[in-house]
Amino acid sequence: MSEPIAIDDPDDPRLCAYRAVRERDLVGRQGRFIVEGEVTLRLLFSPGARFAAESVLLAPERWPGFSDLLRGDGPPVYLAGKDVMSAVAGFPIHRGVLAVGLRGAEPVPEALVPPAPAPALVVGMVGLTNHDNVGGLFRNAAAFGADAVWLDAETCDPLYRKAIRVSAGAALTVPFARAASGAALLDLAQRHDLTPLALTPGGHETLDRLAPPSRALLLLGTEGPGLPEALMARARRLRIAMAPGFDSLNVATAGAIALHHLSGARLQS
Amino acid sequence: MSEPIAIDDPDDPRLCAYRAVRERDLVGRQGRFIVEGEVTLRLLFSPGARFAAESVLLAPERWPGFSDLLRGDGPPVYLAGKDVMSAVAGFPIHRGVLAVGLRGAEPVPEALVPPAPAPALVVGMVGLTNHDNVGGLFRNAAAFGADAVWLDAETCDPLYRKAIRVSAGAALTVPFARAASGAALLDLAQRHDLTPLALTPGGHETLDRLAPPSRALLLLGTEGPGLPEALMARARRLRIAMAPGFDSLNVATAGAIALHHLSGARLQS
Repeated sequence: MSEPIAIDDPDDPRLCAYRAVRERDLVGRQGRFIVEGEVTLRLLFSPGARFAAESVLLAPERWPGFSDLLRGDGPPVYLAGKDVMSAVAGFPIHRGVLAVGLRGAEPVPEALVPPAPAPALVVGMVGLTNHDNVGGLFRNAAAFGADAVWLDAETCDPLYRKAIRVSAGAALTVPFARAASGAALLDLAQRHDLTPLALTPGGHETLDRLAPPSRALLLLGTEGPGLPEALMARARRLRIAMAPGFDSLNVATAGAIALHHLSGARLQS
Repeated sequence: MSEPIAIDDPDDPRLCAYRAVRERDLVGRQGRFIVEGEVTLRLLFSPGARFAAESVLLAPERWPGFSDLLRGDGPPVYLAGKDVMSAVAGFPIHRGVLAVGLRGAEPVPEALVPPAPAPALVVGMVGLTNHDNVGGLFRNAAAFGADAVWLDAETCDPLYRKAIRVSAGAALTVPFARAASGAALLDLAQRHDLTPLALTPGGHETLDRLAPPSRALLLLGTEGPGLPEALMARARRLRIAMAPGFDSLNVATAGAIALHHLSGARLQS
């Protein structure tokens, strides 16, 4: 495209992918996802971005701030007042910045791991159904330079709107792939020479005393039930030393503490 | 009280403190606060709890689960159907468990620090206006056995309903007190022989290399602007080693990583 296209009719078919954002969050979008806000829009268009954008929808007053980023032969940019944007999306769009991304083909988990003997750090999410936790873990995975995230079938979609937001956009940058189950993640770890680590309050050793393996898969499960016993039995069980009587951390927070420990040598070298 | 009191009129004056919960979240409650859900109710009634309960409001089917906890000479327990509870509170009360706590007199910050030369770990919050972050930090302070939390005047109320919930109840158990400003927190640190530590992406040394001081005040500021320069100039500046290009952690997460490091020796000994 060369110039943005002004639209003032909420029923304009070019805005179809922006309709009823919240309802579609629940039922899916046929390979599309919604990006909201400036930080994540810039990540979507950053060099080496993982996903293509199908279109961008901005309030007219936001266009000057993005014209350098979006001018060129990229996807169409539509301009519509915030009232039109809100009418299309079905809730108030305060910041006036939306885009539709295309998921593309999801990679296979194997493709995301640096081959041995290079160092590798992969986060494995098992049964995480809370978008805040998944988004927070992506943010932490990015902060500590994890190579990839692997998800089991139960873990929710990192490209759900709220997960992208909570991830501070990291869901758009950290490569992820899905396996059928937690057991499949452990099979993958074995084939790719990753030491499986399970974070659990009942861990036999504390995280602090672990010499970080050069290649690791960090498994995280839900806060209540935790990781299934059958998975933990195949992994090295680690606990975070906590005060007596309050052994409770949010799973994304626990993951951050473990990633900080595991990445220490890589990030300081 | 001896037995719970059934109430079926949403306008019953005994339920006055439960009215319009969300609106009052914004304007205050004359020394009261609202507790929601089983975990936090149990903390409110745990031995050594910091706050008194004024009353409890349960859906009748929840009473058997709490009768052991609440029977005796405690505050009155009212039973009302969830429809009545929701009508009073002004939003759906799915779990059927509410209570009103009494703030009591707030302690002075000095009163919460173990006297030197005993070890001490205090979290100092400066300008934190997001209830999720404040709640998350209380949860992390409890998990790592911090002795107290000090708040500056701008930091939001830890007894706000959402902060209590996100804290997993830790806002009811970790002692906190307020000082006029961040500078006042640093004056207190000096008087009480606490080493002031400032967590900031621009820190001169990484957290990992810090030998945890026996007595420390960990200062945390907002994610965007961070701690004011005038405060950081009086503290030891620490950064968390992160991957290049994504030096962004949630403030509660960054606090957890620092607390984990600072508490390590205490919790493992």
